Amino acid sequence: MKVKLKDIAEKANTSITSVSLVLNNKPCRISDEKKALIKQIAKDNNYTPNINARSLITKETKTLGLIIPDIENIFFSKLTKTIETYCRQFGYALIIVNSNDEYKEDLHLLDLLLARGIDGLFITVSNSAYNHKEEVCSKLKSLTIPYIMIDRVFDELDCNQVYFDNVKGSYMATKYLIENGHTMISCITNSIYSKNTVSRFEGYKKAMKEHGLKIKDEYIIQGDYRIQSGYNTGDMVISNNTTAVFVTNDMMALGLLKRLSEKNIKIPEDLSIVSYDNLLNDFIIGIGITSIDQNISNLGKVACDLMLSLIKNEETEIKKICLDPQLIIKRSVKNFNTLGQGR
Amino acid sequence: MKVKLKDIAEKANTSITSVSLVLNNKPCRISDEKKALIKQIAKDNNYTPNINARSLITKETKTLGLIIPDIENIFFSKLTKTIETYCRQFGYALIIVNSNDEYKEDLHLLDLLLARGIDGLFITVSNSAYNHKEEVCSKLKSLTIPYIMIDRVFDELDCNQVYFDNVKGSYMATKYLIENGHTMISCITNSIYSKNTVSRFEGYKKAMKEHGLKIKDEYIIQGDYRIQSGYNTGDMVISNNTTAVFVTNDMMALGLLKRLSEKNIKIPEDLSIVSYDNLLNDFIIGIGITSIDQNISNLGKVACDLMLSLIKNEETEIKKICLDPQLIIKRSVKNFNTLGQGR
Repeated sequence: MKVKLKDIAEKANTSITSVSLVLNNKPCRISDEKKALIKQIAKDNNYTPNINARSLITKETKTLGLIIPDIENIFFSKLTKTIETYCRQFGYALIIVNSNDEYKEDLHLLDLLLARGIDGLFITVSNSAYNHKEEVCSKLKSLTIPYIMIDRVFDELDCNQVYFDNVKGSYMATKYLIENGHTMISCITNSIYSKNTVSRFEGYKKAMKEHGLKIKDEYIIQGDYRIQSGYNTGDMVISNNTTAVFVTNDMMALGLLKRLSEKNIKIPEDLSIVSYDNLLNDFIIGIGITSIDQNISNLGKVACDLMLSLIKNEETEIKKICLDPQLIIKRSVKNFNTLGQGR
Repeated sequence: MKVKLKDIAEKANTSITSVSLVLNNKPCRISDEKKALIKQIAKDNNYTPNINARSLITKETKTLGLIIPDIENIFFSKLTKTIETYCRQFGYALIIVNSNDEYKEDLHLLDLLLARGIDGLFITVSNSAYNHKEEVCSKLKSLTIPYIMIDRVFDELDCNQVYFDNVKGSYMATKYLIENGHTMISCITNSIYSKNTVSRFEGYKKAMKEHGLKIKDEYIIQGDYRIQSGYNTGDMVISNNTTAVFVTNDMMALGLLKRLSEKNIKIPEDLSIVSYDNLLNDFIIGIGITSIDQNISNLGKVACDLMLSLIKNEETEIKKICLDPQLIIKRSVKNFNTLGQGR
């Protein structure tokens, strides 16, 4: 049986109001002895305050919510950990829910978190939300608590956002290959329509175009951001006569590397690779993969700082914060220039 | 402004009670037209039921809680995803919180989840909880909702538990090395005191003892389950004159493999390895690592099934469910027997 304020009041021979005031650390004219007694009885009986009841009065839950598409994906599990750590530092608990990358779950979990009472919401929408933008936007617009879109944002929605510049990232990746003398460069992209996917392909096209390089149809290979799809692209990358490949995420790069290893294709001797995310180098042994790094820890920190000022009503204007990615150079790109055989 | 029942009642020209009955799908004598009107007004105004208020009455939240030590660790992120998926199938939402592997957070987050109202709790305690067993046990004992310890359990606590047999797993791993003709076998273990850590070391000792093999002091090397500590053990493994090493978790195996690769030690030609967790083979290219597999998906499923029967009051007896791990054979162990040079 859960112990109630009433039970404690009886045991301490005082009123329910007094017990409530003491246990909620509210100012009151109760002797220190009595206060100590009430707290001791509460402790001895494993009393837990009913926040559901309390939050009806205070309207504050000291809890934030996070909707994430796939907690198993390394990028999101790292992001979640970062946000959780900052929240705790600021005295907030974080409730995490997983949408399984389905926009209907975004909507459902949003209701669930709202109904439970949170002071603010972080949301990384599902990829399928980009095909149901109107519905998801309208839901987000109806929110009466502060919320921040993280990593996956809607350009047209006038709300707080923190995300990376994906055009810039893939532009840097492709430009680096070009600077190393590559002219025939494959791009493994994602057929799913979302802002980040489109942006990563844009950056590749921009760099190729700026340098007057032709993008043949066979250079563009579709995957789905998963390991297996990267593996499946292997034979196409080998046969399309390119010297380098820009892979728009790490999981596909991993699959591709597996296939190339089976076919005994050496990196960077036979093929150069730049990937996106820079999460592989912790895991891959022997090969260092040049990649675009997105500072996840900074993404989480910036979002948490913004949330805090939103909750405290310090922010009056909507903020759209775009963070820069960074090129991390390892040994997966062959330099044709120094070899005097630029192609 | 959040829309209240009162506002909807006014707009629909009916009573608050009627609105409440209709929106909660309770039986009532209200015309279908009026019902449709009430629901439409609620929808148009983005009405969200206040579960905090409602749960005070129904005492049911349709929500389960999960306390996990480290959401960034692949084992736990996979487990979380599995539990979340099953919960959703059963119509329950899962609230996930991260303890950062600190027992004080176990206690704090437990209070937080209880105060918010959950129908049941899954908990994988922090490693440090093993050094503060009494405190954590007493807290768990005081719970009035169903709870299940997952993966990391307290033997002495009479509560529902689902976990793997870690003695058996490491016994199988070590026995496999012995059957392949290895007699001098290192064990990279964890200096942290916890049931699983101790059990994995026990299984190694048991197999060595059963086969009359000597465990020299230098065979036992301490790590902390992280990649860097595995890397640090590399030079000791190379210099202690063993032909094989049993690594008690995958992250340390990964670190060790990195160091061995730097030192140009070939697997399995120069050194044989069996690891624990079988999570690396998705990531490692070229080498297949023989490992002990713990079926995480089954762990999650069994725990969810048990939770459901607990909530429905179908279970009267405490259940301690111990799952068997499995040896997955790849190509990281050299067979001295077929070479006729068993050592």
